[in-house]
Amino acid sequence: MRAARLHEYHGQLHVEELAEPALLAPHDVIVRIGGAGLCRTDLHIQQGQWAEKSGVELPYVLGHENAGWVHEIGAAVSNVAVGDPVILHPLVTCGLCRACRIGDDVHCEDSRFPGISVDGGFAELMRTTARSVVKLGAGVEPGAVAALADAGLTAYHAVRKAAPILHPGTFAVVVGAGGLGHIGIQCLSALTPAEIVVLDPSEGALALARELGADHTVRVDGTHVAKVLELTDGRGAEAVIDFVGEHGIIPDGVAMLRDAGSYFVIGYGENVDVPTIDIISREINFVGNLVGSYDDLANLMTLTRQRRVTLHTTTYPLDAVNDAMADLDGGRLQGRAILVPA
Amino acid sequence: MRAARLHEYHGQLHVEELAEPALLAPHDVIVRIGGAGLCRTDLHIQQGQWAEKSGVELPYVLGHENAGWVHEIGAAVSNVAVGDPVILHPLVTCGLCRACRIGDDVHCEDSRFPGISVDGGFAELMRTTARSVVKLGAGVEPGAVAALADAGLTAYHAVRKAAPILHPGTFAVVVGAGGLGHIGIQCLSALTPAEIVVLDPSEGALALARELGADHTVRVDGTHVAKVLELTDGRGAEAVIDFVGEHGIIPDGVAMLRDAGSYFVIGYGENVDVPTIDIISREINFVGNLVGSYDDLANLMTLTRQRRVTLHTTTYPLDAVNDAMADLDGGRLQGRAILVPA
Amino acid sequence: MRAARLHEYHGQLHVEELAEPALLAPHDVIVRIGGAGLCRTDLHIQQGQWAEKSGVELPYVLGHENAGWVHEIGAAVSNVAVGDPVILHPLVTCGLCRACRIGDDVHCEDSRFPGISVDGGFAELMRTTARSVVKLGAGVEPGAVAALADAGLTAYHAVRKAAPILHPGTFAVVVGAGGLGHIGIQCLSALTPAEIVVLDPSEGALALARELGADHTVRVDGTHVAKVLELTDGRGAEAVIDFVGEHGIIPDGVAMLRDAGSYFVIGYGENVDVPTIDIISREINFVGNLVGSYDDLANLMTLTRQRRVTLHTTTYPLDAVNDAMADLDGGRLQGRAILVPA
Amino acid sequence: MRAARLHEYHGQLHVEELAEPALLAPHDVIVRIGGAGLCRTDLHIQQGQWAEKSGVELPYVLGHENAGWVHEIGAAVSNVAVGDPVILHPLVTCGLCRACRIGDDVHCEDSRFPGISVDGGFAELMRTTARSVVKLGAGVEPGAVAALADAGLTAYHAVRKAAPILHPGTFAVVVGAGGLGHIGIQCLSALTPAEIVVLDPSEGALALARELGADHTVRVDGTHVAKVLELTDGRGAEAVIDFVGEHGIIPDGVAMLRDAGSYFVIGYGENVDVPTIDIISREINFVGNLVGSYDDLANLMTLTRQRRVTLHTTTYPLDAVNDAMADLDGGRLQGRAILVPA
Repeated sequence: MRAARLHEYHGQLHVEELAEPALLAPHDVIVRIGGAGLCRTDLHIQQGQWAEKSGVELPYVLGHENAGWVHEIGAAVSNVAVGDPVILHPLVTCGLCRACRIGDDVHCEDSRFPGISVDGGFAELMRTTARSVVKLGAGVEPGAVAALADAGLTAYHAVRKAAPILHPGTFAVVVGAGGLGHIGIQCLSALTPAEIVVLDPSEGALALARELGADHTVRVDGTHVAKVLELTDGRGAEAVIDFVGEHGIIPDGVAMLRDAGSYFVIGYGENVDVPTIDIISREINFVGNLVGSYDDLANLMTLTRQRRVTLHTTTYPLDAVNDAMADLDGGRLQGRAILVPA
Repeated sequence: MRAARLHEYHGQLHVEELAEPALLAPHDVIVRIGGAGLCRTDLHIQQGQWAEKSGVELPYVLGHENAGWVHEIGAAVSNVAVGDPVILHPLVTCGLCRACRIGDDVHCEDSRFPGISVDGGFAELMRTTARSVVKLGAGVEPGAVAALADAGLTAYHAVRKAAPILHPGTFAVVVGAGGLGHIGIQCLSALTPAEIVVLDPSEGALALARELGADHTVRVDGTHVAKVLELTDGRGAEAVIDFVGEHGIIPDGVAMLRDAGSYFVIGYGENVDVPTIDIISREINFVGNLVGSYDDLANLMTLTRQRRVTLHTTTYPLDAVNDAMADLDGGRLQGRAILVPA
Repeated sequence: MRAARLHEYHGQLHVEELAEPALLAPHDVIVRIGGAGLCRTDLHIQQGQWAEKSGVELPYVLGHENAGWVHEIGAAVSNVAVGDPVILHPLVTCGLCRACRIGDDVHCEDSRFPGISVDGGFAELMRTTARSVVKLGAGVEPGAVAALADAGLTAYHAVRKAAPILHPGTFAVVVGAGGLGHIGIQCLSALTPAEIVVLDPSEGALALARELGADHTVRVDGTHVAKVLELTDGRGAEAVIDFVGEHGIIPDGVAMLRDAGSYFVIGYGENVDVPTIDIISREINFVGNLVGSYDDLANLMTLTRQRRVTLHTTTYPLDAVNDAMADLDGGRLQGRAILVPA
Repeated sequence: MRAARLHEYHGQLHVEELAEPALLAPHDVIVRIGGAGLCRTDLHIQQGQWAEKSGVELPYVLGHENAGWVHEIGAAVSNVAVGDPVILHPLVTCGLCRACRIGDDVHCEDSRFPGISVDGGFAELMRTTARSVVKLGAGVEPGAVAALADAGLTAYHAVRKAAPILHPGTFAVVVGAGGLGHIGIQCLSALTPAEIVVLDPSEGALALARELGADHTVRVDGTHVAKVLELTDGRGAEAVIDFVGEHGIIPDGVAMLRDAGSYFVIGYGENVDVPTIDIISREINFVGNLVGSYDDLANLMTLTRQRRVTLHTTTYPLDAVNDAMADLDGGRLQGRAILVPA
């Protein structure tokens, strides 16, 4: 099969012929890839930023946002059949530790991360397990949803955690209307009656945000904190959902938070650095957010089937993977890039 | 190996020599039984009451409250090793359906129930899977906890569901201080600050209830509703946890419930039969309770290791299984009967 | 002022001249009524069905769904000013008991119910307190929302309690697409991503249900249970929200419930009568629902301001109150009747 | 009456004769003080640290942890009678804003803080309102519980928020076994089955912690992080409850936190300063905690009546207030100082 492998950090990917992956364990599933999302993390991997953390050995196949069709199943697999269209949860988890047993499988004590720590989906075929495949509903194309497997799942997960505090009359501030932010806006609109306020420096991103359900948009131009406070009657928002986490936006986000409100940290780069006296006197919370669980992914796929969440994508053939990465790096991409094996 | 099988309904169990169970699938685990609880359900099975519901074919081995030591493991088992002391969750679940994936494995869409629908633990060896074994802590003997695998787990599960409404100053009424009730009292005491009121017709059961943490005990003698109302300032209890469900106790339990309170149904036999006008004008709830999840069982074992939950048992050799069943049927048992292979 | 009073049970209301209500306590508020909803309960009152329960002395002014403008305020009132448009929570509560202090004011230990136990809103002026007035947003007319004060509030409250179990992919069955049901559908649509299935015997009601957000409608014609099971893949719905509670619908509703699901009781008339063995083996719940809290009403008014909840009404002058009651009784009303003082 | 007033910052309090406070509004309550807790905040006030924040005008009466007996009640007061023993919630709240209406009265939009922003309880009599008085149970002396009104209430509130994540087998790390920490330990023991690990630099404090329910104690000596990780199997604690918030302890507390765990901020002084990459990759949370609600105080008083929470106090006559303050400042106090009017 053809696959795109990284042979050396800072080098281009090599699209080459590899042996097909084989079933190694009874729960294994081989998936014929229909589309694999390309994301900024792939650039970071190429640059060696994950080398130590992942402990992966080169060469290996990148691609951690994968969807396709079931190609072959192990003896113990009962939840999918050959030919089923599926999206792949980004983690391969053990199913036996406490985290797995309570549905919090993202905190599995023994997980693998295809595309990061083992071979991923920039390939014609990929090995995963029965625990990572979510069957797609009728009419959902694998290539159209692949990019939801990681980025979208993270946005859904954060919104799902915010939903219980977002009753009618509350405000949710979405910081950053990029890839994750756009999914976040649609999830907020589907899951909560909150008024959605979206912040971004780009007018184009804000225009798209309005199409996707934002009730208010605010340009990040130095007056944005004051504008959000004005929108919220001077009190701030019950939830700030920060998909940026850098460029100095965190103190602004905290300033927009209502007393007793919660700040959802998704984007990363800088520090949350807040005096404890402010945390207690305002009784505010900071909530960490990782990628969502298997059940979150299944629920997000339901929203996709219902057309409540949609995604803008640009397709590249697998052979053009280095062009796609260059376009992503150069800011020339509209929506998410999806690699499709020929 | 020796095992006790039911060959015909209404007949005695046959203790006989059987082939040892073998590993059939990669997640299978063979357990050397250290103790198997005998419970009223075993009498019901013998009498044929479960024949249709379970669809089991005779003969088969009874025993659905099992603990012991790991004897052999399949190739995919990573959570226990040979020799580990374990208690067995009563269900063998698939691990792949939505219920399993969110930790609600009791509602698995494809489960088996050893001792009910397939061979159980009245035997020297029994087959289960990695998903059903909970490792026991240091100092916990399998024989001492086996009876918690089903009865105790059900009590823990109901109390865990009641705990969020039981803040300081609330009342929890435990209806029935028998096998499950005694575990329920101890769980309430461990998990909540509620004042515990225990109802039973037997003074002996009430005396034991007081030892185990009951703050108030009330004999079921016709004045019991009035007494509970008096204890609760005329308002009733936030939670009524009914381990009986028959003998006409349900209307009494409902009468003891405070407005906006919840009635936890565990015991069964009669109907919940309440006018909707009462349900809405008092805004009361009825909460069904099945056996607990795998995680519930792990937590209950923690309480056992911490000596917050203890169990009175009487041991019988496996060969004396019919004597044990007769003693249970005849009301001659103190505590729970545990069958121990020689 | 003019007001419509009941002088004798089974008699017509008398529209007559009464002394204006006066401020009696520092938190009192006198409201100039802009609209008062007429509801089936008013017919029941007229027929004497509430005589004993309410303990009210005749004659008195009916009307328990009230909205208008603040006319006069007591010395301790700080949350509204003269002239503010307001809707009135149906209960006048003490503010000091535990229920009031935790926001569950509906279970206040010392409440009054204007229109039921004291003079209500079929009048030009009515006395309430600061704790019962919710300010209306810009553009919301008192007469347009009055009927939400009790009926709508009950529907909102039940949906708010159901929302936590209604994630994407779940089903909510609304039993009864009448006055409350229509509000319930709109609240479900605003608060949850659940698929909404609506049951009613009337095709007209179902057509309106579809306009208001129902994803599926099912006629009650004997095949309805089978149809709901088919829609839900044979599993049933996570939530059944029953606005009827009579005409034999309850067993049907229970049959439509998924294992581990919850049955929300709002309509009343017959009994919930279910074997405990079914409640435990399916682990299902029955949840009582009374009218909502003050905060619920404030949130429902937000949904109204946002046009997510709308109401069809027919207006009658106060002098025509007996005509309105006859139309309601005779099934000649479209939407809710609103009485408006001249 | 006699009262202790602050006339100038950095000066001693003046114990002097003042006019008795009078009822000004219908919900006012005059309390005869039985005991008033002295706390570190009183020293901060004396030093002028709260001058700007409180906006109070000198001279005024200090004392914000108050209990006593009802002396006189306004016309609208229905929840207490003259002579009732009571403890006073530290805030006087409006009862009409949304926060008050949902039971989150600490975030009242229009509150006063006796002893901080208006006259407090270092006096024979003090004015508060019906919304701030919690009746004491039989056998509870006002002087014995006064110090729970603020410090204890804060500890209870944080533990109540932590309780839902503390099932059997979890660990709660209490950082700081001083005044608040000791109450926190007792509340954890009453409300949760968690294993309680207490950190403090003082062996004496740790010895008392063990008496009050700590399962493990760890001296803060540079090896404490390693020791907590060892106790928790290398994984850290589900909850870290930090009553210190300074002296560099915060990074240690974060290092003790398990993945997906929550850090409860109560003590203050330094900053929470954590990289967002750690917050998301470990999915950890930071939870601010202010003083508890009225309902929290009522619940804490229940624990006190049940002897599950006790307090060590040293009594001073009101005339010796400056001695008490000097003892507190000089570290010569055992337990909490309670001022008692002669």
